[in-house]
Amino acid sequence: MASEHTVKAFDEDITRLRGMIAEMGGLAEVSINEAMEALVRGNKELAQSVVERDRRIDSLEAEIDKLAVRIIALRAPMADDLREVIAALKIAGVIERIGDYAKNIAKSADKIKGRRQFEPLTLVPAMAELASEMVHDVLTAYAARDAELAREVVERDDKVDAFYESIFRNLVSHMMENPSTISSAAQLLFVARNIERIGDHATNVAEMVYYAATGAYLTDKEDKGQQ
Amino acid sequence: MASEHTVKAFDEDITRLRGMIAEMGGLAEVSINEAMEALVRGNKELAQSVVERDRRIDSLEAEIDKLAVRIIALRAPMADDLREVIAALKIAGVIERIGDYAKNIAKSADKIKGRRQFEPLTLVPAMAELASEMVHDVLTAYAARDAELAREVVERDDKVDAFYESIFRNLVSHMMENPSTISSAAQLLFVARNIERIGDHATNVAEMVYYAATGAYLTDKEDKGQQ
Repeated sequence: MASEHTVKAFDEDITRLRGMIAEMGGLAEVSINEAMEALVRGNKELAQSVVERDRRIDSLEAEIDKLAVRIIALRAPMADDLREVIAALKIAGVIERIGDYAKNIAKSADKIKGRRQFEPLTLVPAMAELASEMVHDVLTAYAARDAELAREVVERDDKVDAFYESIFRNLVSHMMENPSTISSAAQLLFVARNIERIGDHATNVAEMVYYAATGAYLTDKEDKGQQ
Repeated sequence: MASEHTVKAFDEDITRLRGMIAEMGGLAEVSINEAMEALVRGNKELAQSVVERDRRIDSLEAEIDKLAVRIIALRAPMADDLREVIAALKIAGVIERIGDYAKNIAKSADKIKGRRQFEPLTLVPAMAELASEMVHDVLTAYAARDAELAREVVERDDKVDAFYESIFRNLVSHMMENPSTISSAAQLLFVARNIERIGDHATNVAEMVYYAATGAYLTDKEDKGQQ
């Protein structure tokens, strides 16, 4: 039987762990939005700041891993508590991937020339806003252990996928009509693909949050492997 | 002080955990090679079998997670032992991602028309072979705790990246010359991008293996975030 002291210490550790995940997720969200700014405005400084923020996101993941290992080693949590620490480890890993996608978008943004002419440049930010809201809401769902919100985030992923499909078609026909822009259009294609992946990863986190809150699985992973 | 019995039980669990990771990695390797076959030959059945194998890879990851949690809960491993269990969790997560990339390649392969005309169809399998060898060797390095082999895998990633760059340039000019093939060429671009990502993830595992074996970090993550 754990002493009251141990329980309190564990709760403090978990609270800190959850706070670090919230911070990490917040940074990833900022990066998505800043990467879109960089894309639309062709702003190199913004792109660079996204790349730099990703280092902070990566080191936060490393800190979360260390803390999780320390919690397990010192507090020897059981059952649900242990699962919560493991879930935090996994969620931190997914947020790190979301940060990478934002970084990739910023890097592609840097390679796009003549952005004015790309109609998808109006669609892509709208798509990114949906994905960024998914990231925001899934972190709210995680913080509040809100299974319903998690389910709702999963459902929103279809909209992001539909956006991706129409942007893909749009870019392919744009390439056909303007062969000279193909190289930039290909970068824009990667940007859309990265946003689609962010939606998938927010969905993966939502599935973990739902499982942690209800003990039941929400969807199978089958269609979440796109990239 | 752990009893001899506990130590033996822990060693058996870890051996099983490592075996499951070896199995998972072996499946991912088969999927990469089969996805290439599907791509080059335009074989739908092979593409489908890669998609189905990915389910097995996903469920192996879930089994590894469960076993890792059980080991931690029952054996309460300390220090290095605990780090090894956590490393297994993380490596399983990365292999699951590699399986997703192979699945994505198989799905793109299905969408490519008129494959005969694409010169990159000779480059892409060569690139995939490099990436698949990286996956194979990093798992050998993991099984043998071989830091030197892990370092060597990390170094090989530059070759994969160089392949990617030349395939990208090649495809962009192909698109310019043959606008009617742009949609298929874009899929081929995604295939090359997915292989490049597989190389990055094999590199991430190699960094974990190196760290686990030496306690020192090999490279910074900065350039491993491409996709």
